[in-house]
Amino acid sequence: MSAESTHLKDTQSEPDFRQIAIDRVGVKGLRYPLRIRDKARESQHTIATCALTVDLPHHHKGTHMSRFVEVLNEFGPELHVDNIRTLLTDLVARLNSESAHVDFEFPFFLEKPAPVTGAVGLMDYTVRFAATIERGAVDFVVTVIVPVTTVCPCSKAISARGAHNQRGQVTFAVRFAKPIWIEDLIRLVEDSASCELYSLLKRPDEKAVTEHAYDNPVFVEDLVRNIAERADATADITGYCVEAENFESIHNHNAYARIERRR
Amino acid sequence: MSAESTHLKDTQSEPDFRQIAIDRVGVKGLRYPLRIRDKARESQHTIATCALTVDLPHHHKGTHMSRFVEVLNEFGPELHVDNIRTLLTDLVARLNSESAHVDFEFPFFLEKPAPVTGAVGLMDYTVRFAATIERGAVDFVVTVIVPVTTVCPCSKAISARGAHNQRGQVTFAVRFAKPIWIEDLIRLVEDSASCELYSLLKRPDEKAVTEHAYDNPVFVEDLVRNIAERADATADITGYCVEAENFESIHNHNAYARIERRR
Amino acid sequence: MSAESTHLKDTQSEPDFRQIAIDRVGVKGLRYPLRIRDKARESQHTIATCALTVDLPHHHKGTHMSRFVEVLNEFGPELHVDNIRTLLTDLVARLNSESAHVDFEFPFFLEKPAPVTGAVGLMDYTVRFAATIERGAVDFVVTVIVPVTTVCPCSKAISARGAHNQRGQVTFAVRFAKPIWIEDLIRLVEDSASCELYSLLKRPDEKAVTEHAYDNPVFVEDLVRNIAERADATADITGYCVEAENFESIHNHNAYARIERRR
Amino acid sequence: MSAESTHLKDTQSEPDFRQIAIDRVGVKGLRYPLRIRDKARESQHTIATCALTVDLPHHHKGTHMSRFVEVLNEFGPELHVDNIRTLLTDLVARLNSESAHVDFEFPFFLEKPAPVTGAVGLMDYTVRFAATIERGAVDFVVTVIVPVTTVCPCSKAISARGAHNQRGQVTFAVRFAKPIWIEDLIRLVEDSASCELYSLLKRPDEKAVTEHAYDNPVFVEDLVRNIAERADATADITGYCVEAENFESIHNHNAYARIERRR
Repeated sequence: MSAESTHLKDTQSEPDFRQIAIDRVGVKGLRYPLRIRDKARESQHTIATCALTVDLPHHHKGTHMSRFVEVLNEFGPELHVDNIRTLLTDLVARLNSESAHVDFEFPFFLEKPAPVTGAVGLMDYTVRFAATIERGAVDFVVTVIVPVTTVCPCSKAISARGAHNQRGQVTFAVRFAKPIWIEDLIRLVEDSASCELYSLLKRPDEKAVTEHAYDNPVFVEDLVRNIAERADATADITGYCVEAENFESIHNHNAYARIERRR
Repeated sequence: MSAESTHLKDTQSEPDFRQIAIDRVGVKGLRYPLRIRDKARESQHTIATCALTVDLPHHHKGTHMSRFVEVLNEFGPELHVDNIRTLLTDLVARLNSESAHVDFEFPFFLEKPAPVTGAVGLMDYTVRFAATIERGAVDFVVTVIVPVTTVCPCSKAISARGAHNQRGQVTFAVRFAKPIWIEDLIRLVEDSASCELYSLLKRPDEKAVTEHAYDNPVFVEDLVRNIAERADATADITGYCVEAENFESIHNHNAYARIERRR
Repeated sequence: MSAESTHLKDTQSEPDFRQIAIDRVGVKGLRYPLRIRDKARESQHTIATCALTVDLPHHHKGTHMSRFVEVLNEFGPELHVDNIRTLLTDLVARLNSESAHVDFEFPFFLEKPAPVTGAVGLMDYTVRFAATIERGAVDFVVTVIVPVTTVCPCSKAISARGAHNQRGQVTFAVRFAKPIWIEDLIRLVEDSASCELYSLLKRPDEKAVTEHAYDNPVFVEDLVRNIAERADATADITGYCVEAENFESIHNHNAYARIERRR
Repeated sequence: MSAESTHLKDTQSEPDFRQIAIDRVGVKGLRYPLRIRDKARESQHTIATCALTVDLPHHHKGTHMSRFVEVLNEFGPELHVDNIRTLLTDLVARLNSESAHVDFEFPFFLEKPAPVTGAVGLMDYTVRFAATIERGAVDFVVTVIVPVTTVCPCSKAISARGAHNQRGQVTFAVRFAKPIWIEDLIRLVEDSASCELYSLLKRPDEKAVTEHAYDNPVFVEDLVRNIAERADATADITGYCVEAENFESIHNHNAYARIERRR
């Protein structure tokens, strides 16, 4: 900090007498370019929307907002499950706090071959890292937001031909005992739907995904249960919340289901 | 205005010397409760997001923002095709301008019986009124945003069973010689899709809409052409722009088509 | 329901063998016109975005989505703190469930006179009702989302002239022992900021709000503490979560603070 | 393409008899990682939301949606003003069309030193490339969306102390005779506001930006005029549309102004 600043009043550091501690205070809605580790190519470039907060004891008037951005700048460009603890302890140290929380939401891409022709396209997902440190203990939740196809089992069962289907969106948040690949969480979700999505499909592929989806109808209830079943069978997943929302093709509202489990 | 204000400098009314006229200046993003005329019940209550602007001659420094809100307040609660000219001329008069533009976007509801059981539900649409007055001439565009079902003709033709389908959204903007009902524009769009949407469908209805949609597959191209054909055949429609966007159930991106015609 | 439906397979009612109960299942993103009770005029018309869900025991394959819409249709147009229990018990009864949850988010308007001239404008807020019934016990949370002005105390203290200020947004969620007016929650929040907002201000009013805000600078930390202090002093409020987010005028990210208390 | 596809009906290629040509058809809402040329570091990684469309003659039933994604995949990762013509001509060739249109919107970052301490932060902007080819002629529009600070001149003039200010957003779209750097367009906008924004400011910087903004009040009208004046004085800019929207700190609606010029 420049000498000049020493003459400027530090309002934030003044005492506060309301006896009210603040659970979280910091910056939100900050866009920041990062690299994320991936299985196929070591890492990929992305752009995250970030929130970084700490707790504030009752006797301090304010936090120092610029330090959050400084800590993030110093953290370096690569974000992954292993180094997020460093970011949290840096925040606690620089902000003189007892707890810290960070939230990063970013697009994540996978190269995916079409099921018949093998034509390769890039599928986009949204991923969220939310991590909290409190008295040295880190709680880390990874969330994948995965678009899928769902064919309605009821519509298929009662109709002489066809079945209504639609894009659905699964939000799958997990806690884990050992680091888990984003790719594996996405795969777990995609295997639980009527069909997974692709960015590039030629006609033989379109025939294949249409028939595969029709052969595997799922209600929004089936979708979250299929995912819950697979999550329960994955030893490294220690807790989860799965939500599914179908953008119904026959309604202008959505069908929704949620299962939450702590082990 | 209170006596006090006469002592306050009116910065907006000062001269400007940059010789640059402003095309539109005013307020935007203002939420306002209104009543809209409808065919079935005379009028319905809604909440619009509004923009109201005027032109500003090069020699004025600023417009008077509070007057836009005053004109809207005085306008009264009912908005329809017939009284929007009054609003425009009020704006021109109060803001000493040559042109004015208003934009209202609002939800619009229709009671709709399910196709077999007749169970009644409320379907929601979004409607936009955009009107401009310039040297006394009013240009009025009504836009309806209508969700629909689209079944893919290619997927149906190449697949042994099923066909991918999805919610699509049509944005249909029209100019007209004689006032036209919002309900009739919505009907025109819904008749052009694979099937219309409902908020309430029992099982016999779901069977009916599934089969009806499967029997009437449309590409996004067919959808805009069907609407264009009907619009061309409607004498009172003097120009239009129709856009369709399908939230593809097999992709995470959308299919899009647009036709624009001026007569 | 028509005779025809008796022949149609009821897939949802089939047994499920995965042994996985679902916490919440139902409809989401449904727009619906309602009336909300208000202090000044008995009730006002608004349009809510709704979610209605129930739990699903492990042995049922699916819920009956159309019944949620039917229950809402039968509920009638007026929603308030007193009749939401009826809606919840109707859902539990019609869906054969043990718990139900409803969520309504809607715009809410207040007539507000400008502070000096008394010119009346309509201020818009967003309100949320979230209510859950579980084994007969109702948990009700009312949330008001209130835009405010915040002047930065640090900027004021260190600058020779001026002080950066901005629009902020407070999200204040409360549980209560006795029904509480939406208007009183909004007032509590507005009194805690540098200044409240208005839709209509003439020049004497603009002078007044500028000076009032400058005389009452608050950090985002002060804002949530002021609200927490007032909430703590309100006997009927039994718990709350207050969040404030400032759309900083000197940054492209936001300052954020949160306090949550259960009594 | 696999042998299998030769047996599959090509519905899109069938004739259409409605005699209605389609202005634009293709894909929309596709997220795609790209590199963008920048002045400081040669190029930066970003993620664009893309739309790619072509016209469709009246006698064709449909376009081939998968080819848009293929053309984009083959185009390679770096997008800039010089190679966008290649993308357009590729689309026209592969889709057998007469015109093509592409739209890319993406975050763009600049390293920016704070005005007094020189502390470096990353500022984020949004940039849009929209390009059309029609009968070989390319029309290219670059748009920068730039957040700024605006201090209200009226509030400053009439108030004994302080002045309301807020974050504003400028959308500046230009056509140009010679390629123009994104950085230079952003600079032009930032120089026209009360003050530019930073992601990292220490106390001496905060003092400086507060005072600089207070010393340079601009109405939304001044902001668009300042930009228009600078654009008029830039020989390489052949046309522009500038819009400014202030997220007023004293209202819950925005102030808006627009100037559009073709040379």
